[in-house]
Amino acid sequence: MKEQTISKATIDRLPLYYRCLRLAQDDGMDIISSEELGRRLELTPEQIRKDLALFGQFGKKGVGYYVNELKFNVGKILGLDNHWNIAIVGIGHLGVALANYQNFIALGFNLVALFDNDPSIIGKTVNHVRVRSIDDLPKVAAKLKIDIGVIAVPAQFAQSVADRLIKAKIKGIWNFAPIKMKVPDDVKIVNEDLSVGLSRLSYYITGK
Amino acid sequence: MKEQTISKATIDRLPLYYRCLRLAQDDGMDIISSEELGRRLELTPEQIRKDLALFGQFGKKGVGYYVNELKFNVGKILGLDNHWNIAIVGIGHLGVALANYQNFIALGFNLVALFDNDPSIIGKTVNHVRVRSIDDLPKVAAKLKIDIGVIAVPAQFAQSVADRLIKAKIKGIWNFAPIKMKVPDDVKIVNEDLSVGLSRLSYYITGK
Repeated sequence: MKEQTISKATIDRLPLYYRCLRLAQDDGMDIISSEELGRRLELTPEQIRKDLALFGQFGKKGVGYYVNELKFNVGKILGLDNHWNIAIVGIGHLGVALANYQNFIALGFNLVALFDNDPSIIGKTVNHVRVRSIDDLPKVAAKLKIDIGVIAVPAQFAQSVADRLIKAKIKGIWNFAPIKMKVPDDVKIVNEDLSVGLSRLSYYITGK
Repeated sequence: MKEQTISKATIDRLPLYYRCLRLAQDDGMDIISSEELGRRLELTPEQIRKDLALFGQFGKKGVGYYVNELKFNVGKILGLDNHWNIAIVGIGHLGVALANYQNFIALGFNLVALFDNDPSIIGKTVNHVRVRSIDDLPKVAAKLKIDIGVIAVPAQFAQSVADRLIKAKIKGIWNFAPIKMKVPDDVKIVNEDLSVGLSRLSYYITGK
């Protein structure tokens, strides 16, 4: 399972497989064929078989994939079995929306801390987690073993928040600020750009 | 430019190209090579040349792509030159965060209406747009020519909001509720699942 042999495009599809399998599980399905996965994900069955073959033999020829087993394995590849501890920095509207997002819990992430620099927000509770001062980040990060920092602050503060998270030795950053962030190589970053989904929709309705 | 000849994977990369070109433009670049695009997007130059060749001849061999021209053309393919009118339904924390999201405006979308069913929210103003009652949707949709409805309501209300948007003849739905929506074939839908980005980050930090 060497990272360099798996293309970014394949890696990007894994969370989609995981979500699709979770929904199949909710639908009570025991077995799912690559054709059905393809229909649900708008991918070819060949693509799916090729992607999943990279990680080992999860299916049975002529039968399909066992939903529970495949979901477990894809989740393991994605590292969801690590149950990462996440903290959100910036408890404005986006931060509160993220703190309340049920899907994170369904995926096994733990929301362990919330941070802001606004005294009128510090001390409040969102989704049973108390908002702390960003100045407490170093000691809280160590104590609560924060793995992932979510940046939900305005763009002009994003890099300085990233710097503080990096100093606090977090492993990864999930960035919602629309700027290109500077991070060292050993810290992983995923930039979330919400306008990508909207642009995609624009394409579909234009093509009608 | 027939939709059926372009793979979903390619379509999904177009908004990423657009964003990357926008940043290159902000950096003051006039020309960008497929190698540099590849480095920034973590794709191979071959993949980029193949993707962009599908839509015509945008580059000059040995020189690179003209940033402004390529951005303009990718934007046109994505239909961003239509300057779609968008409305958000559900003005909770997520709805407010989306209403304030600057990147939509940068892409040429117009936020024209906000809807909620909570009397304590109706009448308030977010990002210069007044929140209206969801009951006013039919007449407002026709009057303001709403193209895209954004669903930011809790999961249990999402399908009924979708049904109302469809009845109001919108062209596309951008759905943030974590449910599988039923929509007719002539209405396009993009489901946004924020947990995909977080799962991807989990993969990267697991692989270290």
